[in-house]
Amino acid sequence: MSQSFKENQAPDYSFSNEKRQGVYEAIALRRDIRSFLPNPIPDEKLGRILEAANMAPSVGFMQPWDFIIVKDFDTRNKLHAHVDSERRHAADGFEGKRKESYSSLKLEGILDAPVNILVTCDPSRFGPSVIGRNTIRETDVFSAVCAVQNLWLAARAEGIGVGWVSILKNEFLRHIFHIPAHIIPVAYLCVGYTEDFDDTPLLQKIGWLPKRELDETIHSEEWGKKPAAG
Amino acid sequence: MSQSFKENQAPDYSFSNEKRQGVYEAIALRRDIRSFLPNPIPDEKLGRILEAANMAPSVGFMQPWDFIIVKDFDTRNKLHAHVDSERRHAADGFEGKRKESYSSLKLEGILDAPVNILVTCDPSRFGPSVIGRNTIRETDVFSAVCAVQNLWLAARAEGIGVGWVSILKNEFLRHIFHIPAHIIPVAYLCVGYTEDFDDTPLLQKIGWLPKRELDETIHSEEWGKKPAAG
Repeated sequence: MSQSFKENQAPDYSFSNEKRQGVYEAIALRRDIRSFLPNPIPDEKLGRILEAANMAPSVGFMQPWDFIIVKDFDTRNKLHAHVDSERRHAADGFEGKRKESYSSLKLEGILDAPVNILVTCDPSRFGPSVIGRNTIRETDVFSAVCAVQNLWLAARAEGIGVGWVSILKNEFLRHIFHIPAHIIPVAYLCVGYTEDFDDTPLLQKIGWLPKRELDETIHSEEWGKKPAAG
Repeated sequence: MSQSFKENQAPDYSFSNEKRQGVYEAIALRRDIRSFLPNPIPDEKLGRILEAANMAPSVGFMQPWDFIIVKDFDTRNKLHAHVDSERRHAADGFEGKRKESYSSLKLEGILDAPVNILVTCDPSRFGPSVIGRNTIRETDVFSAVCAVQNLWLAARAEGIGVGWVSILKNEFLRHIFHIPAHIIPVAYLCVGYTEDFDDTPLLQKIGWLPKRELDETIHSEEWGKKPAAG
């Protein structure tokens, strides 16, 4: 090791090609799934996926997340009805052909997925002072979002689909699941096997919005400044 | 495929063992890195890591993220001074031994990392109506956080360390990088090779906070209800 430092080379902690490929494939082949098969997820598999979520980074190591595992059909029926009403309300935000297109989309699989998972954030976890949270308060919620993304990628590696249902009111979720007022619902996820992981995100495929190329997203040293060519 | 449906088996989209292992190892071995080596990151590698970020899920496919790549030393010096003052301010939130412990921690590698990356969110991207954002407005920022987690995991697979510096004021970041008022700075990341990826998160290792076991994080059907044993 000391030899390699003399040569000004950093130690090599990179993964084997195959494992690295696994990470990139999980990232590239992950989709937002809205249609599920009823087949149950083996407990062991679901456990691994949840462990992955529990290993997320968190501000000041506060690990603010919790996971409510939802299978009860009555509960899911209520949530489905709520989403349906929010969805009709949202349709009014679009016009003409776009409204038609929006209304024809299947947006969630609350009822067909064998498992739903609500990810929450407890901003009070381990007391009021959290390393690194004093300047940007929402970093606790950001930590819970990182847990969601870990869960999503681990699920993809297991061949399990995940869909994030975001048209749910937090007050409604607190009511249905008896969640204390200070706990923040962060993500309602539908989880299960699926018939197909599409190559392309649905909203890109139907021409709703174009994919932004990496070049468009990159700024150099300051906002709006492009890197020098080459 | 139709045969497997008759047998009530879901199609198998799971990864090979080696690739799946790669995903789980990236998740388990990812650390928040605060000490970096000066070795530059090859452009190709940095490109792959940024591509991974650009493949994150986003509400309504709005892809609200941008990436400002920061190498300029003057800029980083200013940021470092800002973080230092925020850090002294934050120290007052802790008392006695805990204050001492906090003050002794190296919290960021802004100056030693060869590259810093600011990830931002443009809530106005592609117009005001976004599928799935009407109920929970912050889902656009959540999308940018998913991009951060993708970047973090891809970097780990490449043997590159990432540290998220959260004690920075958004107004200061907007000022330094000439960021328009409507753009939200989400994550300031230090990126580079590192001497060591510890097995254990630093704040767990020094006994600042305990790791929450998975059991503690799981609720069944509603808040506070534990799953039946077995």
